[in-house]
Amino acid sequence: MADYVEGKRPVIEALRTDVPLKKILLADNAKRDPLVNDVLRKARQRDVQVIEVPRAELDQKSARGSHQGVMAETKPFPYKGVGDIVDAALAYAEGHEGRALVVVCDHLTDAGNLGAIIRSAESVGASGVVIPNKRSARVEASTYKSSAGAVAHLPIAQTSNIANALERFKKAGFWICAATEHSNNLAWEVNLKGKIVLVMGNEQEGISHLVLEHCDMAGKLPMMGEVSSLNVAQSSTAMMYEWLRQNW
Amino acid sequence: MADYVEGKRPVIEALRTDVPLKKILLADNAKRDPLVNDVLRKARQRDVQVIEVPRAELDQKSARGSHQGVMAETKPFPYKGVGDIVDAALAYAEGHEGRALVVVCDHLTDAGNLGAIIRSAESVGASGVVIPNKRSARVEASTYKSSAGAVAHLPIAQTSNIANALERFKKAGFWICAATEHSNNLAWEVNLKGKIVLVMGNEQEGISHLVLEHCDMAGKLPMMGEVSSLNVAQSSTAMMYEWLRQNW
Repeated sequence: MADYVEGKRPVIEALRTDVPLKKILLADNAKRDPLVNDVLRKARQRDVQVIEVPRAELDQKSARGSHQGVMAETKPFPYKGVGDIVDAALAYAEGHEGRALVVVCDHLTDAGNLGAIIRSAESVGASGVVIPNKRSARVEASTYKSSAGAVAHLPIAQTSNIANALERFKKAGFWICAATEHSNNLAWEVNLKGKIVLVMGNEQEGISHLVLEHCDMAGKLPMMGEVSSLNVAQSSTAMMYEWLRQNW
Repeated sequence: MADYVEGKRPVIEALRTDVPLKKILLADNAKRDPLVNDVLRKARQRDVQVIEVPRAELDQKSARGSHQGVMAETKPFPYKGVGDIVDAALAYAEGHEGRALVVVCDHLTDAGNLGAIIRSAESVGASGVVIPNKRSARVEASTYKSSAGAVAHLPIAQTSNIANALERFKKAGFWICAATEHSNNLAWEVNLKGKIVLVMGNEQEGISHLVLEHCDMAGKLPMMGEVSSLNVAQSSTAMMYEWLRQNW
């Protein structure tokens, strides 16, 4: 199924942030205003084909009715398999004194959070991110912006079964650490040395019980305030840098 | 000068996230559609006065022309003085084995980043956040959402002179640590024990030279990726939890 970016400014943003695009559809009666001209100029620079189509075709393809005469069809995101990330992490460990990090997101709902986690994971030297292929935030056109382009540099795998994926990492010599406020151990008391899979939970429910059962250990970031909540992207970043600190 | 939230959904969001509101202005000819009814219901629940005014008055007060017949006037945010935060941090240190943390933001531009930093600062037990009173992101209605309500629990000070503010903290026994990628020291090699002011820089330029000259030490989070950038809110969170780890 094709994914579309709708509307003048969103299409300009997609071109600006290097979202891989198949083609741009322009309504045959679209006015050549400054924004449309910007779309045409950027499409030429990035060598993306622009096709004129009847406006009714856009109306039919549009999910939200906000196309303003312009839509961009994105290329399907090249997800990796879990095995690819196992391999990439093992290869990284070879060259980095045995340390490697993979982040597994257990059904995040917010695409912005996923993008921020991908950005931080790339910054800390993680080997990949694993997400479920259903009921989960996934890589969208907006992820190129929210990850500051990191999504194009870091392998992302989709899996139908998080628990199975964790078992594959275990067999390859990884320790699985859950980040959860229900843990009795502080993040810096957990041994994160070596090859680690860090599991982050959903924004509301945290990590599911089934997935927790497949984790070897768990750590929490203490909450010292009155409101006492940390955004999942923020806590991921703190946990990832704790991994890097212990392995430095 | 009064600040206004414009439009039906933004006003509902402001009511939902407990933004302190003076009153709501409703155009005398506004249709009672479901969204307007939601505004009226939530305003009643929160005991916020709704005043009918001629639509022309909204047009005149509107900054963006997107009021849709509804605007909310926010109460001015109760900024503290730098001295208040010095006092709060010293009191916190008394009760917490000498540790205290204050975050100083050197001209952030993005209001979402400021909100995220406030949320993490509250979570880690910081005593306050200091921001400049000009050319800087400041507390807006949207900050109540982006900080997950933490802005109502953490003292925020505005100052006309960041360098002077740092000197006041020094006199009160604080060490000033700059978070900057130009440092030779890793974050976990810097001594963050005790009363610390953490200085975070602007999204593009980092910390200004003048402000850097008033810092006692500096630390960086190593960037291990190809894209090599970390959002300022993410790096703040990692630095703040490193402070908490060292002081635990």
